[in-house]
Amino acid sequence: MASRRRPKRPTLTPGSFSIELSRGNGRPLFVQLHEQIVDQIAAGDLVPGTRLPPVRALARQLDINPMTVAKAYKDLAEAGFVESRAGAGTHVRSPDGTLTKRAPNGGGQAAERPLLSERLYELSHAPGVIAFTANFPVVDASSIEEFKSCMTAAMSGDLSSRLYYAPPTGQLGLRQRICDYLAEQRILVTPDEVIVTSGAQQAIDLAVRSLVAPGAPVVIERPAYYGAINSLRAVHARILEVPLERDGMDIDRLEAYLVRHRPKLIYTNSTFQNPTGVTTSEEKRRAILALARKCGVPILEDDHCSELRLSGRPIPAIRALAAPDDPVYYVRSFGKVFLPGTRLGYMVVPTRARRPLLAMKAHTDLHTDVITQDAMEHFLARGHHRVILEKMKTAYGLRQKNLIESLNRDMPEGTLIGQPEGGLSLWLTLPEGAEVSELYFRAVRRGVTFVAGEAFYASRADPRTLRVSFGVVSDAALDEGVDRLCSAINDLMRPRAAPSPIFT
Amino acid sequence: MASRRRPKRPTLTPGSFSIELSRGNGRPLFVQLHEQIVDQIAAGDLVPGTRLPPVRALARQLDINPMTVAKAYKDLAEAGFVESRAGAGTHVRSPDGTLTKRAPNGGGQAAERPLLSERLYELSHAPGVIAFTANFPVVDASSIEEFKSCMTAAMSGDLSSRLYYAPPTGQLGLRQRICDYLAEQRILVTPDEVIVTSGAQQAIDLAVRSLVAPGAPVVIERPAYYGAINSLRAVHARILEVPLERDGMDIDRLEAYLVRHRPKLIYTNSTFQNPTGVTTSEEKRRAILALARKCGVPILEDDHCSELRLSGRPIPAIRALAAPDDPVYYVRSFGKVFLPGTRLGYMVVPTRARRPLLAMKAHTDLHTDVITQDAMEHFLARGHHRVILEKMKTAYGLRQKNLIESLNRDMPEGTLIGQPEGGLSLWLTLPEGAEVSELYFRAVRRGVTFVAGEAFYASRADPRTLRVSFGVVSDAALDEGVDRLCSAINDLMRPRAAPSPIFT
Repeated sequence: MASRRRPKRPTLTPGSFSIELSRGNGRPLFVQLHEQIVDQIAAGDLVPGTRLPPVRALARQLDINPMTVAKAYKDLAEAGFVESRAGAGTHVRSPDGTLTKRAPNGGGQAAERPLLSERLYELSHAPGVIAFTANFPVVDASSIEEFKSCMTAAMSGDLSSRLYYAPPTGQLGLRQRICDYLAEQRILVTPDEVIVTSGAQQAIDLAVRSLVAPGAPVVIERPAYYGAINSLRAVHARILEVPLERDGMDIDRLEAYLVRHRPKLIYTNSTFQNPTGVTTSEEKRRAILALARKCGVPILEDDHCSELRLSGRPIPAIRALAAPDDPVYYVRSFGKVFLPGTRLGYMVVPTRARRPLLAMKAHTDLHTDVITQDAMEHFLARGHHRVILEKMKTAYGLRQKNLIESLNRDMPEGTLIGQPEGGLSLWLTLPEGAEVSELYFRAVRRGVTFVAGEAFYASRADPRTLRVSFGVVSDAALDEGVDRLCSAINDLMRPRAAPSPIFT
Repeated sequence: MASRRRPKRPTLTPGSFSIELSRGNGRPLFVQLHEQIVDQIAAGDLVPGTRLPPVRALARQLDINPMTVAKAYKDLAEAGFVESRAGAGTHVRSPDGTLTKRAPNGGGQAAERPLLSERLYELSHAPGVIAFTANFPVVDASSIEEFKSCMTAAMSGDLSSRLYYAPPTGQLGLRQRICDYLAEQRILVTPDEVIVTSGAQQAIDLAVRSLVAPGAPVVIERPAYYGAINSLRAVHARILEVPLERDGMDIDRLEAYLVRHRPKLIYTNSTFQNPTGVTTSEEKRRAILALARKCGVPILEDDHCSELRLSGRPIPAIRALAAPDDPVYYVRSFGKVFLPGTRLGYMVVPTRARRPLLAMKAHTDLHTDVITQDAMEHFLARGHHRVILEKMKTAYGLRQKNLIESLNRDMPEGTLIGQPEGGLSLWLTLPEGAEVSELYFRAVRRGVTFVAGEAFYASRADPRTLRVSFGVVSDAALDEGVDRLCSAINDLMRPRAAPSPIFT
């Protein structure tokens, strides 16, 4: 094959590798090292195939702990920038990853890791377990009756025309109702701009596949929704993580990445971000939009549950701030708010993006189930969802308040507990030194589960983080769940006794 | 970026480019040229970035018509092997296509071409048009009643557990029924080997994404189902087309491709192939399986409608001939036989392929709609589908016979009409000199449509081919449809009068 003729790979001697680390600026050394190597790859100073200095040699050169270099290399490998192989060292990957033998599904990691969706499903259904894993609501009896009645209505019409292949766009009737629904939130679009998808996850995946060539750089928040990270990994994207601050992405870092790396996409979860609950401020939304316009980079805005605002003032979506022809791909679904199992989502897209996305939808699954679309059209038309939503906001507002109070009371000193204005999750950062990976099985043994933060990082995770979701935990079980969780955590944080010698 | 440092691209002088064409062996010169260039790329004799000789220079060297060289270059570009740009010549692409600026959806073509699925939908619904476009059956009144009753049954249970996220695998109950259904056809599998998908198209797409890295070579039949071609294009596959003979793929050509190109996948539509109707013989199925085993290449067997056998003796699927751990991915759906609009398909996969495919399914759309799965479980359990199938086979057997007779009577001398033993389509090859692209609009004006053959080729299409499907054309409309089609074709084939001079 062509690789037989590949020229000898360039190598770097430790001294020729220019890295400047600064201590005491608050940025961990492994993060600084990671970022500078990424920048050198982007600038073409490190070409594909280049062998990076060995861990120990670079640690000596920089006078830092070899673990710090190893950490940075591991992150770079996970984000797709380099490839480490035992005995062969660490090499810069070409954008398509041809240097590597990793599984083509982009992938080796995904294939070997336990499948998060299955694990969450199993845990949330295990008897006696209090599952803080569900970032989606309980479907109450009245919603079930309403949906059943809408399904019956959908099937009572002329079903013969509903059992054939349909266009990839989605049913016009549903798209019209979606436009009405969005208009209530001041997002004014026409049915032609809407594509119905099999859930928000599919909308994200279609946009990623349509916009991101193999190896292309993409900006996401750090941390970010794991479903988006997995879609990006499947197309071999180079994932650039911008730290998330209390009011959204670090805009300076975003701008630096846009200028240096020319990414093909910015993915943002602007309201009640999954997992952190952070809502990007209107000021930062405008800044992101302005940067995206200036650099010609599309924004994929995943607005997964802005309806579930429990306090504070609504902030317009980036889509609502943008002009119709701005490069904003706006994704929503019904799953995180009304009916989790109903595979129905939608995407509002710029006119010029419509045809390639429809072609992608057509060869992904032709179209979304028509009867379910008709049922959802009835559901929206009847307007009962407004009543459901108000009830939910009251109930979940109270539950969130109780959960925060319990956690504040029982969690160890120094735990950071997010205070989101909506959504069904809290993001926790345990005190210095905690390792959530060690916590997980202790908690399961005590009959409580959560989602470890590691799922939400494309590169090295913050080991102290976890997501605690209260979507399906009843008020009655809440205190008991917090008790179990906090006792597992306090147990984890207790200074370990030195192992007692076997012989005295 | 890294490309700034790309070494100067190698160029070939015409004389140094070794091509040997042989006349009179029945293979068109442009095909020979195409194949030899592909082989040289595979052997590494032509490395990525190499500029091929200009069209005219190569034509002079080989003493052939420049049009022939241009044809071959165009095919190579469409199949992803080379890239032609005005003024810059034709260059060999690297496997990931980084040489090129084409749209990342793999793509430029797909984005600009009319969307076939939309065009087919519109045409088949245009008033007064007789649409020979539907390769799927009419859903009769009794099937509609049966399905409605199954949906009602699915919703009458405890719906509360049906409206939540479910595992990507699909419902166990449905997977068990699928195993029973397959066992009737002597395909013995366990529910653990079955993954439920949103239609067969999604199963194909998941397998392709899971197995084919960007730029990797893949073998398909020539011609082949356009949905598979589009999935392959989306992952930037290098598509290697093996000519389809009356009893399946040209096995010598297949073996040569397997040995020289080491493809990552063989895609085959083994029974009543879409579009040609060809059924691969049992002998060739065994040969394909043996080659796949020998070379370690997975087979994606798309068994879209083997239930619809209208004559002849059933032939076991490759999956039925294989051992459980053979690398066969076996795809089916309910759409081409019972209920076209119901987005339900499934895939039988080797155990080791299960986890990566489930991970891919999870980030594609999480899972397939649960209520529809439950309804289909009832549908299969009741067994009424056997009655439906027998009725369909009788009706479509007669319709196929009538259609073939009418076409034989009315089509111009020299037309080749496929004689498939099942399925709902016929494949026609018009006499020498016909251009179906010119026929298309004449036919639409006469109120009849079909699918032009070009959709089914990954590289240069045979311009004389078309697919005539009789899935939804009523017996009453059949003769009128054939009349319209044949009059358009005879009109096309009539020798054109020389244009009359404006001044005499």
